[in-house]
Amino acid sequence: MSEVYAARRTRLRDHCQAGGSQSALISRPANVRYLAGTDPHGAVLLLGKTEDVLVCADPPDRRPTEGRLDEALRIHPLPGAGGDAAVAAAGLAAAQGGGDSLAVEEHHLTVARHRAIRSVAPRLRLTDLGGAVEQLRIVKDEEEISCLRIGAEIADQALGELLESILVGRTERHLALELERRLIDHGADGPAFPTSVATGPNSGRRAHRPTDRRVEEGDFLSVCLGATYRGYRCEIGRTFVIGTSPADWQIELYDLVFAAQRAGRESLVPGAAYRDVDRAARQVLDSAGCTEGLAPLTGHGVGLEIDEDPQLAPAAMGKLDACVPVTVEPGVHFPGRGGVRINDTLVVRPEADGGPELLTITTKELLAL
Amino acid sequence: MSEVYAARRTRLRDHCQAGGSQSALISRPANVRYLAGTDPHGAVLLLGKTEDVLVCADPPDRRPTEGRLDEALRIHPLPGAGGDAAVAAAGLAAAQGGGDSLAVEEHHLTVARHRAIRSVAPRLRLTDLGGAVEQLRIVKDEEEISCLRIGAEIADQALGELLESILVGRTERHLALELERRLIDHGADGPAFPTSVATGPNSGRRAHRPTDRRVEEGDFLSVCLGATYRGYRCEIGRTFVIGTSPADWQIELYDLVFAAQRAGRESLVPGAAYRDVDRAARQVLDSAGCTEGLAPLTGHGVGLEIDEDPQLAPAAMGKLDACVPVTVEPGVHFPGRGGVRINDTLVVRPEADGGPELLTITTKELLAL
Repeated sequence: MSEVYAARRTRLRDHCQAGGSQSALISRPANVRYLAGTDPHGAVLLLGKTEDVLVCADPPDRRPTEGRLDEALRIHPLPGAGGDAAVAAAGLAAAQGGGDSLAVEEHHLTVARHRAIRSVAPRLRLTDLGGAVEQLRIVKDEEEISCLRIGAEIADQALGELLESILVGRTERHLALELERRLIDHGADGPAFPTSVATGPNSGRRAHRPTDRRVEEGDFLSVCLGATYRGYRCEIGRTFVIGTSPADWQIELYDLVFAAQRAGRESLVPGAAYRDVDRAARQVLDSAGCTEGLAPLTGHGVGLEIDEDPQLAPAAMGKLDACVPVTVEPGVHFPGRGGVRINDTLVVRPEADGGPELLTITTKELLAL
Repeated sequence: MSEVYAARRTRLRDHCQAGGSQSALISRPANVRYLAGTDPHGAVLLLGKTEDVLVCADPPDRRPTEGRLDEALRIHPLPGAGGDAAVAAAGLAAAQGGGDSLAVEEHHLTVARHRAIRSVAPRLRLTDLGGAVEQLRIVKDEEEISCLRIGAEIADQALGELLESILVGRTERHLALELERRLIDHGADGPAFPTSVATGPNSGRRAHRPTDRRVEEGDFLSVCLGATYRGYRCEIGRTFVIGTSPADWQIELYDLVFAAQRAGRESLVPGAAYRDVDRAARQVLDSAGCTEGLAPLTGHGVGLEIDEDPQLAPAAMGKLDACVPVTVEPGVHFPGRGGVRINDTLVVRPEADGGPELLTITTKELLAL
């Protein structure tokens, strides 16, 4: 595995040198993990002129859920509790070659840390690395996709088991907790994000936080969950109807959101513009008059974070590549009445390879539970 | 409740004006909640020259777990997904009175946001608010302490129920999940931090992340958990021994950590230096030769965050006031063998009021389970 991390660091180093920086300081945790294999609390990674160093207070743990440290990296321990790893790393960078420039993640580093770095290494010219590591992270290798696939299987299993149990009378919060327990039972590191269970008037709300409302006959029930597996996070969302037979409005609304979600999925081809994927799903809802309260995005990348680049949104710039995992998650919510949300994680693949690979395979038929 | 938030904002405004700033931009979520009553995702609070405004993408929810919005505050909605609340708030500040200065939380604001603020409001002089809100938050009012007290009762209940169940053969991860479920059952918003369950060689490790190791006869079992209640977070930690009778080394080690923890608790009086509380506990362990691998701190403040000011550590500056809730949590861990950690949340009270108020009342006798 170590070669993977070293290769990623080489790509980033090439990028920095093309931009005129000899070294880079990586502080965003998911970026540290991507490049070092692990991200102990508070750790930063120095891509140095002469040596790469992981600076952290606690030596990294070797358990698989915390990642596997690239053994080629030198570990620089921080003494005591008050030390700032970013400041210590800047000191190391200055020692490696005074007068050079250091690229930092200005979108993550605080003003106070930036100032502390300037004062400990006044001769280093600080530049902005921007989202360079986030850009590298967009296209996944097969090892990463394999972690996402296992995570999706775990989420499918947890959801499948829940559907076999009695739901009426149970609260959103208890259902969410049970799903999270089942994720762990099936081998997840943990939930990929706070599990969302929404019933009745709450159904269809994006990122709804579970309440004490109980499931009732006739409700829509929307569930959104995901597993983290070896650091990689996926997402699945489904909406069900409670009771023997859905009402007409429920069937119509479900069919509409299903059609929008399918349109989004089918537009996932290498080379498709992010905004076109969004538009494909969005215009199905628009044309049915569901324009109020639509979410600002139809989907997003997933990986070491649950909400990564790209954003599938009307103003997003860029095009999909093969091996980019994204969610497709349109939804409609009518205040006071509820709604529908359907969410899959898929990997963009060329048509010659069979088109988009669906990771979350739970049925999207409207189940009456 | 609204008066409480308005009064807090007035105190902060006085502080800012004494420092020469007419307005302040609060971005750290716990600080926003402290001053506005709620902190929707991504929200910032502008303490303006003429008006206070909460800038957020999603209008705040009114559920009690999310806090109660101060109704006197104006809400300024952010259009779309790409907007940055801090930048929008700086624009409002500039519109309220151009040419003035705006104090920002440099320890929270990123370099990129700081730069975006400068470009949207180039005539505003940006100054550093520092940890002014964190300082205001140290001393709690009785309403806040009441939330901590209820949270502690919930944690005590969850722990008490776990102790009545069979423990041998269950994994750390499952015990942690069960504790978290019980916290919710008893009315917590959620866990105050990831519940830690550590068995055998893991026992006594600070912030140990639960593994698949199963509880065995003869183990030490250390548990650390806390409830969030109306946003306030408390912490309790206990160590037990599994089996009918503890070994001699276990009894000795337990007595030592208990003595250290008691020394820390007994030194919690208004006016005591933070470092002296730390020293009181630490020197008990030191004098027994347990100097290796001691945590850098003996305790810390709790409130809207689980790890707040003050830090009870050797180099900490400052003195305790009445109505400051802190943890006292010394521990010893021998690699490969395990250890003991005992942790209470207490509120500093004057001796005339009965001395420190213990919120976490589960027994600290060494229980053999």
